[in-house]
Amino acid sequence: MRVRKRAGAKELIEAHPQYVVAEPTEWKGRWHERFGNDHPLHIEIGMGKGQFITEMAKAHPEINYIGVEMQISVVSIALDKMIEQEIPNLQLLHVDGSALTNYFEDNEVDQIYLNFSDPWPKKKHEKRRLTSKAFLAVDEQILRPNGEIHFKTDNQGLFEYSLASFSQYGMIIKQVWLDLHNSTFENNIMTEYEEKFSSRGQRIYRVEAQFVAKDPQE
Amino acid sequence: MRVRKRAGAKELIEAHPQYVVAEPTEWKGRWHERFGNDHPLHIEIGMGKGQFITEMAKAHPEINYIGVEMQISVVSIALDKMIEQEIPNLQLLHVDGSALTNYFEDNEVDQIYLNFSDPWPKKKHEKRRLTSKAFLAVDEQILRPNGEIHFKTDNQGLFEYSLASFSQYGMIIKQVWLDLHNSTFENNIMTEYEEKFSSRGQRIYRVEAQFVAKDPQE
Repeated sequence: MRVRKRAGAKELIEAHPQYVVAEPTEWKGRWHERFGNDHPLHIEIGMGKGQFITEMAKAHPEINYIGVEMQISVVSIALDKMIEQEIPNLQLLHVDGSALTNYFEDNEVDQIYLNFSDPWPKKKHEKRRLTSKAFLAVDEQILRPNGEIHFKTDNQGLFEYSLASFSQYGMIIKQVWLDLHNSTFENNIMTEYEEKFSSRGQRIYRVEAQFVAKDPQE
Repeated sequence: MRVRKRAGAKELIEAHPQYVVAEPTEWKGRWHERFGNDHPLHIEIGMGKGQFITEMAKAHPEINYIGVEMQISVVSIALDKMIEQEIPNLQLLHVDGSALTNYFEDNEVDQIYLNFSDPWPKKKHEKRRLTSKAFLAVDEQILRPNGEIHFKTDNQGLFEYSLASFSQYGMIIKQVWLDLHNSTFENNIMTEYEEKFSSRGQRIYRVEAQFVAKDPQE
């Protein structure tokens, strides 16, 4: 997502360290302490303006959420939503999604959401796609055994690529939706982008894919 | 596919045992003898009226093809195509696709095509879908190690189901096309059904899925 630079974004974020975590590396391996409970931890990588993660957190108070986003202007827009309303089970991280092992211990995360990730359509940019092999390796490391990625996109090419990438990585495709908004899927929470593009008749694709635990004990 | 009963279909088939194999169990394990060469063997399960398999056979003389179909009327229509033209690398089987181990030895088949299989949309009919677990087990048995299924359909529900079914069986999703006729896929050979429905604007889905050899020697 590309957005205009927002004046004062940095200052707004620095003024709210209770929402946008100031020193995220310090919480690695002990996010449950920060939330003050042992609820499952779900993260969204590339949360954008934050509508999805804030609405998910409000709908599921029994789950802890962390929204990760590297673009400062959109982090500040997501922060607006947190300032307006009380969402105790949500935290935001203004960090690069490729360095997640700096902020999450192995097996610390219960589920990962990817929504409308940048498609990087050129073959030479394949490695930048969040569903490519190297990113999946990081996701697998921080996820609990048999953890899942739930992925939505309107981009046909990225979805085709991602199904094959998940499978070739060794993940199990649990369920696929080829037209989410004309399906029986219930309680879909839309991102800002999803609202805009689905209203123009764009199909929304969705998949739930699961890592396969290598440890036979799990 | 449902077609009208065709008068004389049985007699036509019985008059052409060189095309529609009269005693297919006798050739189990030695189809290469019948073709008179050691070329790879590709089969289509549910060939319908036979346009796909006859055109494939003509386009790829270095591959042997067998079209399998249980409905006698459509077998006889496919047979018409063989009578009209010389296709030495094609044979037809008028048998039930669920009993393929009667006609093919373990590892005898190199590739399987499924085109526009009956979607059986009701959950209670899931076991009749040709991409359900029991059919995949038969396919795996007759296919060589790391053999592939190439599957096309216009049915969204069947495609969603099949992607998950392949993956959950342990197959690798090698490549996915969510709109085959608007893709870079080359040399697509259409079935009769595909011509009709794609001309009405229906999307055609395609996937190539591969079994994973359990034998570490392969």
